[in-house]
Amino acid sequence: MTLVLGGARSGKSRYAEGLIELRPGPWRYVATAQAWDDEMRARIAEHRARRPAPWETVDAPRDLAQAIRQGPRGQPVLVDCLTLWLTNAMLDEAADLAAEVDALVEACRGAAGPLVLVSNEVGFGIVPENALARRFRDEAGRLHQRLAAIADRVVLVVAGLPMIVKGDAE
Amino acid sequence: MTLVLGGARSGKSRYAEGLIELRPGPWRYVATAQAWDDEMRARIAEHRARRPAPWETVDAPRDLAQAIRQGPRGQPVLVDCLTLWLTNAMLDEAADLAAEVDALVEACRGAAGPLVLVSNEVGFGIVPENALARRFRDEAGRLHQRLAAIADRVVLVVAGLPMIVKGDAE
Amino acid sequence: MTLVLGGARSGKSRYAEGLIELRPGPWRYVATAQAWDDEMRARIAEHRARRPAPWETVDAPRDLAQAIRQGPRGQPVLVDCLTLWLTNAMLDEAADLAAEVDALVEACRGAAGPLVLVSNEVGFGIVPENALARRFRDEAGRLHQRLAAIADRVVLVVAGLPMIVKGDAE
Repeated sequence: MTLVLGGARSGKSRYAEGLIELRPGPWRYVATAQAWDDEMRARIAEHRARRPAPWETVDAPRDLAQAIRQGPRGQPVLVDCLTLWLTNAMLDEAADLAAEVDALVEACRGAAGPLVLVSNEVGFGIVPENALARRFRDEAGRLHQRLAAIADRVVLVVAGLPMIVKGDAE
Repeated sequence: MTLVLGGARSGKSRYAEGLIELRPGPWRYVATAQAWDDEMRARIAEHRARRPAPWETVDAPRDLAQAIRQGPRGQPVLVDCLTLWLTNAMLDEAADLAAEVDALVEACRGAAGPLVLVSNEVGFGIVPENALARRFRDEAGRLHQRLAAIADRVVLVVAGLPMIVKGDAE
Repeated sequence: MTLVLGGARSGKSRYAEGLIELRPGPWRYVATAQAWDDEMRARIAEHRARRPAPWETVDAPRDLAQAIRQGPRGQPVLVDCLTLWLTNAMLDEAADLAAEVDALVEACRGAAGPLVLVSNEVGFGIVPENALARRFRDEAGRLHQRLAAIADRVVLVVAGLPMIVKGDAE
């Protein structure tokens, strides 16, 4: 299990795809984006265009734990990205966020094959004035800590290049 | 002397506590938080709950240099965190910020025992629209540079994990 | 060619100057700042005060590719910084940004002497509410990825200290 953190447009998705493509396919791509607006639709389209077969895309804007568990046992899985899933979960007022995060961590821990998780590192700026943004930053930070603790490798992507935070370089 | 930088909810406080706890106690915790509102009070309470004896907590929202100098000679000291202290100092219109920063740097340089300083890295975002936030970012960056220059070790905490910027891994 | 990334007040300019000063002078400093307001004027003045002869300063707020190509062949060149140039280009409604970025990357690839590029890493914060800021963040991230791919060294400066992302420590 590898956790790939990076800033906006850091090349983290492309780096993570490269990690998965080192394994024999087909590979499963678990997409968490929800197309709220045109800007997001354009980003989703751009990401999809980079992934021809043997990528199989599964959309999981909400039940990410289930999407990680399902599928052929041992198949390499890429989740892109955790922060979009967290946003969706936080905006769903009916959601039990703590329980969903627990379920996600358990699903990651139980993954039978290579699992690469992509997420935005969002905590290195000034404290946001918006309370929801502050809460999001806190939840994302806590989630990253829990996943990093159980991951075999943690990578921070800067300008498309990996900085190894935990584990070995591939 | 170790400078521990990290983003919001990066696990930097917990990592810093672990560094101090490698030494024989009792340990001194210098807390700089000022409880302006409920959100801050909750954060302070959460941090305190993690620190039973042999931690001795000293509140120093303003005179941090003095708090670092006092106490038994050689006692391990953790300061958490510099950015809250800087915020307090910048909001105090009667303060001579440059003189206080000089005094703080001198107190750190003169520390007789292990000293671990925790601070938020806040400079990796978009330029804030708010002029005070820009000034805070500048002051924090300058303070980190001065302290990093005299520190034996500088660590950037990402997702609870240390990236060594200066010195050796512990 | 070295790409020096860093946050606000991270000491990235000073670190980059140090890299150039390891070579025999005179050195060329390509300044991209445009003095829009007093705050910017103060920053420019502070940066200039650090660079006596043998630094030769060239102002290139817009035609950066040309400024990199001109000058004595093999002269060490420091560009400070790419993010200011990108801001200027994005605010110029008559500009063909994609073509200018291509020209800049080509000029960097063709540099005959040591070339050090300084830029702000701005992608590690919360998604900005401002659409222009989001676009800037995306363009900066893409530019950094392209330059990092062709650079011999990429360095992330934290608190005045270099973290090597690509290549060897100097």
